[in-house]
Amino acid sequence: MSTVANELRKDYLLDRWVVIATQRKKRPTDFKQRLEEKRQAGVCALEPGNEHMTPPAVLVYLPTNGGIRKDRDLNGFRHKNWIVRCVPNLYPAFTPPKEGEWLGLESGLFTRASATGHHEVLIESPKHHEHPSVAKVSQLIHVINAYLDRIQELSSKPYVKYVSVFRNHGLEAGASLSHAHTQLIATPIMPKIMEEELKASKEFYNKNYGCTFCEIIEQEEQSPRSIWKNKHFVVFAPWASVHPFEFWVFPKRHQCCLLDLSRSEVEALAKTMRVCLGGLRTLLGDPPYNFGFHQITCGARDYYHWHLEVYPRLTIWAGFEKSTGMFINVVSPEDAAKHLREAMLEEEKKI
Amino acid sequence: MSTVANELRKDYLLDRWVVIATQRKKRPTDFKQRLEEKRQAGVCALEPGNEHMTPPAVLVYLPTNGGIRKDRDLNGFRHKNWIVRCVPNLYPAFTPPKEGEWLGLESGLFTRASATGHHEVLIESPKHHEHPSVAKVSQLIHVINAYLDRIQELSSKPYVKYVSVFRNHGLEAGASLSHAHTQLIATPIMPKIMEEELKASKEFYNKNYGCTFCEIIEQEEQSPRSIWKNKHFVVFAPWASVHPFEFWVFPKRHQCCLLDLSRSEVEALAKTMRVCLGGLRTLLGDPPYNFGFHQITCGARDYYHWHLEVYPRLTIWAGFEKSTGMFINVVSPEDAAKHLREAMLEEEKKI
Repeated sequence: MSTVANELRKDYLLDRWVVIATQRKKRPTDFKQRLEEKRQAGVCALEPGNEHMTPPAVLVYLPTNGGIRKDRDLNGFRHKNWIVRCVPNLYPAFTPPKEGEWLGLESGLFTRASATGHHEVLIESPKHHEHPSVAKVSQLIHVINAYLDRIQELSSKPYVKYVSVFRNHGLEAGASLSHAHTQLIATPIMPKIMEEELKASKEFYNKNYGCTFCEIIEQEEQSPRSIWKNKHFVVFAPWASVHPFEFWVFPKRHQCCLLDLSRSEVEALAKTMRVCLGGLRTLLGDPPYNFGFHQITCGARDYYHWHLEVYPRLTIWAGFEKSTGMFINVVSPEDAAKHLREAMLEEEKKI
Repeated sequence: MSTVANELRKDYLLDRWVVIATQRKKRPTDFKQRLEEKRQAGVCALEPGNEHMTPPAVLVYLPTNGGIRKDRDLNGFRHKNWIVRCVPNLYPAFTPPKEGEWLGLESGLFTRASATGHHEVLIESPKHHEHPSVAKVSQLIHVINAYLDRIQELSSKPYVKYVSVFRNHGLEAGASLSHAHTQLIATPIMPKIMEEELKASKEFYNKNYGCTFCEIIEQEEQSPRSIWKNKHFVVFAPWASVHPFEFWVFPKRHQCCLLDLSRSEVEALAKTMRVCLGGLRTLLGDPPYNFGFHQITCGARDYYHWHLEVYPRLTIWAGFEKSTGMFINVVSPEDAAKHLREAMLEEEKKI
């Protein structure tokens, strides 16, 4: 039984509390788990040659002499021989507005709105398994540039308030397809977590005339939760990590969204993602994970600071977490950082 | 592809949005899933005869002539022949304060506190598989009475701000043991979701001199989301259900916590839980689920209204949900209610 009291920690900004309860990871189970996560024999709609199985691409990168040509598919026609390819999701959560479609909000107890927006699948590589953890850095640079192109187009639409760029890796992380892909969802409202981060960082700014995230980076870079860095990016396990082995990636330079990235920062981000996700893969045997970018594409320039949050899926949110919004993490961020640090240093040598 | 636009819905009180995206449930997967969830051959620490494998019980119900005797284990001694039994969790997330232990909060970016509180396992039956979905109603009455005894004791402690009573059913819902059990966690802070519900219901009360939950019940009882009711309880699928087939159980009489239940309401709640969870089991083949009671044990008497939230675990929260706090639900609450209604009506005939 635990002799050391567990620690409750609050997120830097959010009113989100987590118990760091490391003894709990030793608890026994009488369930026998065997999760087989193999690819089914069958057709992959994201594979080169199967372009007709998806809607027309809204963006393709095509090879040209010494560079990239950007294009999109027209109805009935599909570009082949692409490097990255972005298509509307065939089963979208959000869809573009149609003429005359009801958009308004009702209020009172029963508030609703059309789920107006976009839902896209960005196919990261013609190679089924070229996930960021094993990808060539040159390919990841294309992927990030494609993020930027899609963020720019989606965020310019008048009905779009937020563009979420996220990745589900593995069945237990909610992926339904195993081909390397990222998703983009453009929403007509600002999501709750972003709203809370914005509010807190704005308050900090108004009080201190500075960016609270810049302050966090400065402190965490020298803390036992520091994991890795290069010239442009810093990686650390957040103080109140909700997930075991969770880590966050921040650009050192203050910038509110991915669109602010310089060309050399894009390259540094590609390398950072390759090292971080490769290290995670090596350390824990290609675990399922989610990642999500947090960014603000307009307003908030002074006080918001974009970053990437990576959540390995090693435990399950159960009744306590779901009904209270409090969390239990069985690995301390300091322990997680130690192991991830070693794994990422090793990974760096490989690329 | 969807021809009907999906709908975004906001929770009655929380700033929590969900997209009802029913077309998404048709999307294909190329993962082959095989989750074997069998009990391992081995010793169950919650089984009668293995009482020495747990810490001393803080509560046991023992049979006497024509009734129940309540007692607790003393160190070194374990009561046998119990009807229900509540023990401290061997791997607790929260632990009682020790003398001289640091309890304070630090503030700034790095806020923390001791995880002071309690974490208990309430063994619902000597029978391994007597889950609420199949239990005798008479046994469930004992279980609920044991909840009340533990809530009363835990909520009276000066360092306890909230008592969470929750249940994890099945491996995919985060259960580590398959013997029928509920957990209680007493926390030193008010959890985020409760804090938000309290704030919103207090605002409603100050404006309308009434309980917002009473209003919700009245409206939902006559809505297409209504599922089942008896003299004392109402069951419905909430307007902005986050989980497919989610349902909530409310007492009709305004009361802020389970301790307000009358004896006949306890009986009605036992029957309601048996019908609801039995219906869920029949409808979906004993799916994994979580449930959590929302209640306030002191203050808030006028404006808070306790209830039980049940979350079947049929889909996975992925990168979008985890990074934004917005949700996608592939089953509309109205459809869920229709199927649950039929299943619960059938279930009612069995008991």
